[in-house]
Amino acid sequence: MSQRVSDEGVRKGMEEIKSGASSRRHGDTLSHIHRVESPPKQTLFKEIKDSVVETFFPDKPLNKFKDQSFFRIFVLALQSFFPIFKWGRDYNLKNFRGDFISGLTIASLCIPQDIAYAKLANLDPQYALCERLGFVLRIQLGDLNTSFVTPLVYAFMGSSRDIAIGPVAVVSLLLGTTLSDEISDIKSHEYLRLAFTATFFAGVIQMALGVLRLGFLIDFVSHAAVVGFMTGSAITIALQQLKGLLGIETFTKKTDIVSVMRSVFSSAHHGWNWETIVIGLSFLVFLLLAKYIVKKNKKLFWVAAISPMISVIVSTFSVYITRADKKGVEIIKHVKKGVNSSSAGEIFFSGKYLGPGIRVGVIAGMVALTEAVAIGRTFAAMKDYPLDGNQEMMAMGAMNIVGSLTSCYVSTGGFSRTAVNNMAGCKTAVSNIVMSMVVLLTLLLITPLFEYTPNAVLASIIIAAVLGLVNIEAIILLWKIDKFDFVACMGALFGVVFINVEIGLLIAVAISFSKILLQVTRPRTAILGKLPGTTAYRNVWQYPKATQIDGMLIVRVDSAIYFSNSNYIKERILRWLSDEETQRITSGLSRIEYLTVEMSPVTDLDTSGIHAFEELYRSLQKRKVQLIMANPGPIVIEKLRASKLTDVIGENNIFPTVADVVSTFVANGEGVL
Amino acid sequence: MSQRVSDEGVRKGMEEIKSGASSRRHGDTLSHIHRVESPPKQTLFKEIKDSVVETFFPDKPLNKFKDQSFFRIFVLALQSFFPIFKWGRDYNLKNFRGDFISGLTIASLCIPQDIAYAKLANLDPQYALCERLGFVLRIQLGDLNTSFVTPLVYAFMGSSRDIAIGPVAVVSLLLGTTLSDEISDIKSHEYLRLAFTATFFAGVIQMALGVLRLGFLIDFVSHAAVVGFMTGSAITIALQQLKGLLGIETFTKKTDIVSVMRSVFSSAHHGWNWETIVIGLSFLVFLLLAKYIVKKNKKLFWVAAISPMISVIVSTFSVYITRADKKGVEIIKHVKKGVNSSSAGEIFFSGKYLGPGIRVGVIAGMVALTEAVAIGRTFAAMKDYPLDGNQEMMAMGAMNIVGSLTSCYVSTGGFSRTAVNNMAGCKTAVSNIVMSMVVLLTLLLITPLFEYTPNAVLASIIIAAVLGLVNIEAIILLWKIDKFDFVACMGALFGVVFINVEIGLLIAVAISFSKILLQVTRPRTAILGKLPGTTAYRNVWQYPKATQIDGMLIVRVDSAIYFSNSNYIKERILRWLSDEETQRITSGLSRIEYLTVEMSPVTDLDTSGIHAFEELYRSLQKRKVQLIMANPGPIVIEKLRASKLTDVIGENNIFPTVADVVSTFVANGEGVL
Repeated sequence: MSQRVSDEGVRKGMEEIKSGASSRRHGDTLSHIHRVESPPKQTLFKEIKDSVVETFFPDKPLNKFKDQSFFRIFVLALQSFFPIFKWGRDYNLKNFRGDFISGLTIASLCIPQDIAYAKLANLDPQYALCERLGFVLRIQLGDLNTSFVTPLVYAFMGSSRDIAIGPVAVVSLLLGTTLSDEISDIKSHEYLRLAFTATFFAGVIQMALGVLRLGFLIDFVSHAAVVGFMTGSAITIALQQLKGLLGIETFTKKTDIVSVMRSVFSSAHHGWNWETIVIGLSFLVFLLLAKYIVKKNKKLFWVAAISPMISVIVSTFSVYITRADKKGVEIIKHVKKGVNSSSAGEIFFSGKYLGPGIRVGVIAGMVALTEAVAIGRTFAAMKDYPLDGNQEMMAMGAMNIVGSLTSCYVSTGGFSRTAVNNMAGCKTAVSNIVMSMVVLLTLLLITPLFEYTPNAVLASIIIAAVLGLVNIEAIILLWKIDKFDFVACMGALFGVVFINVEIGLLIAVAISFSKILLQVTRPRTAILGKLPGTTAYRNVWQYPKATQIDGMLIVRVDSAIYFSNSNYIKERILRWLSDEETQRITSGLSRIEYLTVEMSPVTDLDTSGIHAFEELYRSLQKRKVQLIMANPGPIVIEKLRASKLTDVIGENNIFPTVADVVSTFVANGEGVL
Repeated sequence: MSQRVSDEGVRKGMEEIKSGASSRRHGDTLSHIHRVESPPKQTLFKEIKDSVVETFFPDKPLNKFKDQSFFRIFVLALQSFFPIFKWGRDYNLKNFRGDFISGLTIASLCIPQDIAYAKLANLDPQYALCERLGFVLRIQLGDLNTSFVTPLVYAFMGSSRDIAIGPVAVVSLLLGTTLSDEISDIKSHEYLRLAFTATFFAGVIQMALGVLRLGFLIDFVSHAAVVGFMTGSAITIALQQLKGLLGIETFTKKTDIVSVMRSVFSSAHHGWNWETIVIGLSFLVFLLLAKYIVKKNKKLFWVAAISPMISVIVSTFSVYITRADKKGVEIIKHVKKGVNSSSAGEIFFSGKYLGPGIRVGVIAGMVALTEAVAIGRTFAAMKDYPLDGNQEMMAMGAMNIVGSLTSCYVSTGGFSRTAVNNMAGCKTAVSNIVMSMVVLLTLLLITPLFEYTPNAVLASIIIAAVLGLVNIEAIILLWKIDKFDFVACMGALFGVVFINVEIGLLIAVAISFSKILLQVTRPRTAILGKLPGTTAYRNVWQYPKATQIDGMLIVRVDSAIYFSNSNYIKERILRWLSDEETQRITSGLSRIEYLTVEMSPVTDLDTSGIHAFEELYRSLQKRKVQLIMANPGPIVIEKLRASKLTDVIGENNIFPTVADVVSTFVANGEGVL
């Protein structure tokens, strides 16, 4: 008995090696060859419903409403539109402690950044700070008008716990350049109105994407293109700051690197203000030093977070005391108080600026959304909580629509401040509310001081902030992993730096799309061979040990077969056949009698695909080669049967595995070549 | 000894059934588990070159030039640009017999059709017939001006042996409606000039696509959309003919079915001319009868081919004898003789009509190309000869550019006449030349008669011709095979019929594209189970017999993982996991410890895909589930290794087959559930 067991052990070890060969020899007598099965029949309605649900509602948002009372449905709906009602119930003092500290931290980071960003959008600082604070009534603190709206709206509607809302550098730059293309007089009231109009339509497009559940559209801008676009924008923004940093008075309005550098060097001998440069550079060094410290020790994140505020306070006092503004150091000046009116009446709903407003709004809205969703996903994945993309878009949309009615421009979630918010231990969106309040209070108390803040410090703050967007490691990784991604990234980067933000964006989107189109037009195909000692058939290019079968060619098609590639796939298969045949005949091997198409990766097939197979079958008939299919998937076999193509090819030429094909057709063929 | 052999036979029969299970039990001691291999390293240059070649030169057009003498290269190049120099050398009398007969046949079919089609494009008949004939000098036969150009150019440059060149109904309608949107006075000289301009740019775009080897772009219009567009156009064209058929004098200029039917019925009591109706309907019945006969007996194809000519001759004589034109039967009238000047100076190269000319030209050129390539491919596949898509585009482009300089409008290959050409036994493009000559001679001889040809007969001829474009069987097949294709088809059809040709075209393209986008955003995933008695793992939905593995979930991703779907795939896998876990735990089964992702169909992965897997890995870690990969392809494993993701997941968690995964991780697990 023990002998038999031991025997069996050895035998089983051998079985694995022999099984492929043995199954071939005994092919027609084996009972285990399964028939390719059709999936259970579905009604047309169910089929369409499933497809629509999978496209627009992959997260099954309505599942939770099933079998609930009317009141419960109302509560759930309210909670899903305003997540604050959900997490708010479990909100406790411990959460608030985290939110309060992080709110304070991001407030101190944001106040100086926001003032600086508004300059990028060619707007007065109030329009940036207004994003930060709440309420429809805007308290005019000199030029530092404020409102409470956007973070407050987001706190109620957003589903991310980490995002810190406000104006961001890239969107501000985008708005600034595209709006000034339309209206060159950036001090005019029209310019301001156009900014509100763009913000309104940015909100509308964001909301529309969320409501129509078209959020997946933003997935069409590739990660690589975003990296390139962000890096390019960061470089462009930093270059723009040379004006403030060097105290240059006449500066180009263009953003491309050539124009900017020409402006800088042509003003080198007379236009630079040395006092400004000293202030700007010393604070830039301070800010970068603070960032470096944080990089070395993550626990000191608050050093970087408060460094801009310190810079503003110190520089403002210095200027106030030394009266450096008399020596040509430019300062913010004009700071007045009061409550602003609503901007609802300012939005262009008709006239010649409606079109440009919509265009700029849609672009800015999409860019803002791409940035916010990327950030939201990153942090949601880090903390492993669910993020509802469509809800996020609705929140962003609502926030920008309300913002546009209360003198705000496009706001979104920013990379660096969200990271700071997270590191400072935020728990919920309450940190956004805390931040708003803190900003409001701070402004009320220290407002008069901003009058003497030098522009050079704002430039330093922007440069230090946007350098965080330059992600060299990500670019190196792109180069290592995917050359096409690297090209997309560089295309977007150079487009932004050498031409302008819009062109860079266009290049990024175009490259992203062409990659998708390439994928669907020229899918890969592979020649399969048998892995020695197994019944597995694998790409012979990847596994040089895999051996092809005498008299048979096995081709795997690695994509759904649609109109966009059906013709190519047909011709590619025929080309494989011709190439292989020539090669085998010159090697003195027998001619190819069977062509097996491994269909496992072919998830779908449309009518063009059916026609392509008909044509392939006919071409092969003329060459006296038998077409065989291995493992057509559920959808594919159903369509093959519906079109009666299975009758043409023959049901007995369709197998569930390549091993079955080989065992049936090749009598004694061990692998060859 | 014989006992042992027999034993072995039985054992081997059993092996197949046991092998899966046994390999699992002995997993770690088996030597046959292959390591996932990286493909041979390639230089970046070679990688990029291969990708470019596969995209733009899948047919390897330069292979034949390798290792040839300079003179031979010149000859080969000449032959590839002008295929006539290749097939012309083997041209013999037998070929000419076939071409001569088919040339005669299509000439008799085309003369009446062309006169009729010109009316669709709002042009005088000469501009249609000019397509048919050759030479730069155009012989003015009354209004029936003719030139020899387009078929002659095609005969030299085209690679299809069957296509019959000329104006076609759909392109004529498209030109007619789009041009008259730009210039409403269709009798003006500007209208004519715009038609030549559009033709010129149609040729330019066609040639450009060929030269730049962008021919694959036309694959982006799906077969289904073409069927719908053609059927819709046929219905629209037939409806337009009610004007001529019923002898209505005041008719709408719109093409949508509502406007047309309103026009028809509002003129029912006073605007219809009963003599016209009798002529029109009787010849329509005659033409349809001829078609029906051919359908019953393919050998009588010449009956349908000459029936339009007979109709024209008989009706013209009848009108001439009875002078029915005095009773309100509209006739062609004005027929003058002479030689026309070239139209090279007529093309708008600047001014306000340049833009519309380019726009209309590009649309018409693309539609004409789509039709011609579809036809060319069909017949090339039928006779199994190679068709060079890019060469075909260059031929079409050259022909239309030359045509535009010689007073022709856009011409292409027509469905019905190509079929007739084929049935009449054409051998080469010489049949096009014969046709041109025959048309020229016929016109010279019977010209004066055309003066009395009633418009009603032209209407009948068009209706009979376009009914061939209504392909009910194809639409039924679409419904049976692919519901999405059916929707695309109906969208295009209703767009054309209820709005206009351009909108129909737009709908067709939009639906085609959205299908592609859907495919790349929402790829399919499947849960795999083991087919009993094999080591094959298949979709459990398709194979209900396939059994899942206790403690393990096997998910197959059926698409390359790119930025457009990476996030969806990650979330879909996690959703599968949650759903399955809930189900298994309620069934009292053990929790899922291993998640195997079958990567066979994943042909490529970009940086977004890498990030998605990183996030997936992290999410799974939190749930205490081990991520395992099975059979990553060559490109994928290379990128996984380049990004060091293999180190995160662990090289020993990556296997070449699912069977290996199961044998390694599941100690005693036969399939469960």
